[in-house]
Amino acid sequence: MATSTIEWVDGSVRLIDQTLLPHREHVLEVTDPDQMVTAIKRLAVRGAPALGVAGAYGVVLASQRFGPGSPEFRKAVDALRGARPTAVNLARMVERVAARASKGTEGMLTEAHAIRQEELLASLAMGESGADLVLELAGDRPVRAMTICNTGGLATVERGTALAVIQTLHERGKLAEALPLETRPLLQGGRLTTWELERIGAPYRLLVDSAGPFLIARGQVDVVLTGADRVAANGDTANKIGSFSLGLGAAHAGIPFIVVAPESSIDMSIDSGDLVEIEDRGPAEVIGFNGTLSAPPGTPAANPAFDVTPVDLITALVTERRVVRFDRNEDLASPS
Amino acid sequence: MATSTIEWVDGSVRLIDQTLLPHREHVLEVTDPDQMVTAIKRLAVRGAPALGVAGAYGVVLASQRFGPGSPEFRKAVDALRGARPTAVNLARMVERVAARASKGTEGMLTEAHAIRQEELLASLAMGESGADLVLELAGDRPVRAMTICNTGGLATVERGTALAVIQTLHERGKLAEALPLETRPLLQGGRLTTWELERIGAPYRLLVDSAGPFLIARGQVDVVLTGADRVAANGDTANKIGSFSLGLGAAHAGIPFIVVAPESSIDMSIDSGDLVEIEDRGPAEVIGFNGTLSAPPGTPAANPAFDVTPVDLITALVTERRVVRFDRNEDLASPS
Repeated sequence: MATSTIEWVDGSVRLIDQTLLPHREHVLEVTDPDQMVTAIKRLAVRGAPALGVAGAYGVVLASQRFGPGSPEFRKAVDALRGARPTAVNLARMVERVAARASKGTEGMLTEAHAIRQEELLASLAMGESGADLVLELAGDRPVRAMTICNTGGLATVERGTALAVIQTLHERGKLAEALPLETRPLLQGGRLTTWELERIGAPYRLLVDSAGPFLIARGQVDVVLTGADRVAANGDTANKIGSFSLGLGAAHAGIPFIVVAPESSIDMSIDSGDLVEIEDRGPAEVIGFNGTLSAPPGTPAANPAFDVTPVDLITALVTERRVVRFDRNEDLASPS
Repeated sequence: MATSTIEWVDGSVRLIDQTLLPHREHVLEVTDPDQMVTAIKRLAVRGAPALGVAGAYGVVLASQRFGPGSPEFRKAVDALRGARPTAVNLARMVERVAARASKGTEGMLTEAHAIRQEELLASLAMGESGADLVLELAGDRPVRAMTICNTGGLATVERGTALAVIQTLHERGKLAEALPLETRPLLQGGRLTTWELERIGAPYRLLVDSAGPFLIARGQVDVVLTGADRVAANGDTANKIGSFSLGLGAAHAGIPFIVVAPESSIDMSIDSGDLVEIEDRGPAEVIGFNGTLSAPPGTPAANPAFDVTPVDLITALVTERRVVRFDRNEDLASPS
């Protein structure tokens, strides 16, 4: 198996168990819709696109087991849809497959495969047009690309968003070095992105988050690539905490800062980033590190989960359908 | 005992064992020069000014034990001076006390007390003039002060540098909140600064490093206060990795960024920060914390131990003798 987070093989679903990464690489074989609900709940699979595909195949497993349209089938579909209540993709894709119940298990499997394929094509498209843009901006030479959090195949099916661009650059022989930030507090960069970079054979060095802007200032970085949690109508982008610091560092040094995200991350109902409410996830994540305490229990902490990079610090947004050049005063309403 | 890192009590030295903080607060009683060498080597006491005082009292212990000027005394002095070869303060203060051997043990104790008192007065002076400056710049109201690493009494005798300013603001009733960054990779902020803030009863919230610039951007911070490892002749300041990001964040939001450091940190032999060589401390610190791994052993990493904040991002430097207002085009050669 390639770096594929989730796939259908001979009547069952194979998933990389992300809770064991990077120290153990274990592929779960899921044959039953209840097992899929459990895998989703305990975060063995995570990331909105990956959850959508997991839910889609979960419906096929339910049909295999109980027959399409039976009461047990409907119950299993409900359980899948509610396994992670805030993940919109999960509910949407579960419904999309379940709506094909009249076509039988094979009809639903075809739909689930289509969903997986759409995600994969979106990642491929973002990777290609992102790499084209990087090489246009940085000159056609191997680049040093800094990134944050995990935006790779583990959050999607394969490749991902910002990390898809890095993978494509590597495949073209145009990646000198990837520079992933560890991404405190949950260390998705240190745990997951390093593992994905190893898998694709890309050269990289891991960094603590606060080293990012300084390496940029010292001329050791050619481009910053990030994902997005939400892009406001004016282009301001909410993403993992630490992205804003990289935006400041990139602007100070005059290197491009590129956001890579699917069209579904654009929220035209929010005018600007100032209006994005920032979730505080509480002190526990801050005072510990992978289960080791760094400060005494009860230490007060602020823990904003993401930040907002204002559009004037962003060079461009790359989606699966278009490139919006904010540095050329294009905006999200421009025809593409 | 107050928040005093090191003091002389009834013929012995009492030290807070920093290796056990924050989870255990244990005061070592050191009665013998060999014990002091061991305490220094295993980092029970750290920070240049604190090491100078520890060495000074170590010489007094050697005189108590062996008699001033005896061959055993000279041997003990040599061992103290060499306990941490790179700490200039240690060797200098050991020699300064040992040079008084002809005045007997009491004469050397008087000199060691004088050294401790000078360090204490320097911290008090930096605290007072730093607090005056903060209130002048921010308006005479309780402020929210962000800081990085540990710059408190644990690195000095009491109070410290940037943290001395925060303590003084708190004593004046002008501290709304301290916002220490945890300071990866070694987490001095999370482990030591939080402990000191608890001791002085100051309100605070701990943050992951990358949250600093964003909280500044959201209007939740009034001033940034940092220490310095080295200040170049033009005012560029090398300090713990992450300080530069706070400088970018402060300049972007238009809040003051103040460096607090003793005159001994100014190095007029270096013209600018570009010439400061950045030590890379190797991957082990980045891929784990206190024995907990976040990435597999062998993961490549870059680990710059400090960064350089250019003088155009620095509002002022506060030392024990003067305030240099870079924002008013004053420089380090200006008469004070």
